Amino acid sequence: MSVLVVGSVALDTVKTPFEEHADLLGGSASYAAVGSSFFSPVNMVGVVGDDFPEAHVEFFKARNINLDGLQTVPGKTFRWSGEYMLDMNVRETRSVALNVFEHFNPALPASYAETPFALLANIGPNLQNHVLDQMKRPKFIVADTMDLWINIALDELKRLLKRVDMLILNDSEARHLTKQTSLVKAGQQIQAMGPRFVAVKKGEHGCLLFGENGDFFSCCAYPLEDVHDPTGAGDTFAGGFAGYLAATNRGAVTFADLRKAVVFGSVLASYNVEQFSLERMRTLTKADIQERYEGFKLFSHFEVIED
Amino acid sequence: MSVLVVGSVALDTVKTPFEEHADLLGGSASYAAVGSSFFSPVNMVGVVGDDFPEAHVEFFKARNINLDGLQTVPGKTFRWSGEYMLDMNVRETRSVALNVFEHFNPALPASYAETPFALLANIGPNLQNHVLDQMKRPKFIVADTMDLWINIALDELKRLLKRVDMLILNDSEARHLTKQTSLVKAGQQIQAMGPRFVAVKKGEHGCLLFGENGDFFSCCAYPLEDVHDPTGAGDTFAGGFAGYLAATNRGAVTFADLRKAVVFGSVLASYNVEQFSLERMRTLTKADIQERYEGFKLFSHFEVIED
Repeated sequence: MSVLVVGSVALDTVKTPFEEHADLLGGSASYAAVGSSFFSPVNMVGVVGDDFPEAHVEFFKARNINLDGLQTVPGKTFRWSGEYMLDMNVRETRSVALNVFEHFNPALPASYAETPFALLANIGPNLQNHVLDQMKRPKFIVADTMDLWINIALDELKRLLKRVDMLILNDSEARHLTKQTSLVKAGQQIQAMGPRFVAVKKGEHGCLLFGENGDFFSCCAYPLEDVHDPTGAGDTFAGGFAGYLAATNRGAVTFADLRKAVVFGSVLASYNVEQFSLERMRTLTKADIQERYEGFKLFSHFEVIED
Repeated sequence: MSVLVVGSVALDTVKTPFEEHADLLGGSASYAAVGSSFFSPVNMVGVVGDDFPEAHVEFFKARNINLDGLQTVPGKTFRWSGEYMLDMNVRETRSVALNVFEHFNPALPASYAETPFALLANIGPNLQNHVLDQMKRPKFIVADTMDLWINIALDELKRLLKRVDMLILNDSEARHLTKQTSLVKAGQQIQAMGPRFVAVKKGEHGCLLFGENGDFFSCCAYPLEDVHDPTGAGDTFAGGFAGYLAATNRGAVTFADLRKAVVFGSVLASYNVEQFSLERMRTLTKADIQERYEGFKLFSHFEVIED
């Protein structure tokens, strides 16, 4: 089954203590769509300026991503610049230029309207709602969000939460949204705001998944020695998650499917941070993904007690 | 098999945003010994003043803890006072009075010398080394440590690391000791300093276990909605860990045993923080422990891929 992915498409400048690269492919939709594409066909929705390199378009196409919904308009592509500290968990945004993204009005091509899975990657909740308005009863809707929208568009975000099956956000955002220190309470409180499922990402500490009737899954992060660029890890996670879920193609989404989708999302994210931008995704294979999935099992499972 | 546990025995005053209690049973040896006692007989080594309540002594005895090595000397028992913020991960020490602990010289009763397992709970590494000097070839030695000793007794700590099978410390301490941001690199670097095994505790995010030849285990924390008093969680973890390991009573310690020991340590710690001091340990049963061990499996395992 296909996944509709909407979000930002950007050109990023990323600085770490060791390297700096300019005008890299970035944006939530880029990471999410490419992450999904390892499991399912993707219908992408986004906007770029007329300066957007053709090579990036070709990369999307080569990954079997349908670009009928990617608008190219006169002007410059959205640009973001950020810097990571020696502790790569700490990031500072150096500049943001919305450019053509400022007036983005996501219009779904007719061919996208019946896409069965939707991943509303990180963009304003007004745009996420607008995309949902154009879809015909998708089977499963996942939304990502961030601090900015909790601060400046809370009502619109709350309206969105009533319409989606699942929300993905990080731990500080979950605490911010609920004013709860306990992530367990925060997750449950977000479920009460609408989504049946909530995934709380904890960066290097993995992810918590909250389901119905107390269903709960705690997924560790892959133990990486070196992280070269954490940009897009969350978007890649969401993409891998939604892509795997769409590929399971069952009558209804089960919690066992969601557990596996969380692990696959984590596998994709763990690879993505090994290189800048989406570079690692260019060489990643199905066998790599399978290998690290098995790795997750090896380092997180333990025996039942015999004695 | 028995576990020798050496560490501090204290009377704690603990304040949280909701409650404050004075003169509670505390100290690393108290938590660790009681944690171990759920699995194995314990030989305790410590010191208290003549003000130490008889009721605490009776509690230790009731838990099958041998107190031949618990010295009672004239003066006051070690006192610690701390305060937790609304985010219970943040703690401030309000006061410390070493009292009789200042001149503590752990002397092992002859009957303790051949104890097969040793848990050197958190005390100065000079004292930990002094205890090892008095032991006859223990099968397995676990040591806990803290920031203070990395700051003021690094050489003595390094000497200790060459003598122990395993070090337990928390994530900030591992980073502090190695100057590494990556916990994976930090764990490996500590192994290179001596211990074959290293456990890095991450509080609400669980624990990483590093073994030989790249063996690795990542254990989630139990998803608690409410934490009433985090004091002693790490010591209880170490106690449950060492107690379970001693109880397995095999020829050699395997990594599979260590994985299970980490889960049992985490189970014990998850119960301990539900009430102040060691109160929860008074009512805890084997069935409770078993139930939460199974719970850890339910929320951390996922299926192998069939498709």
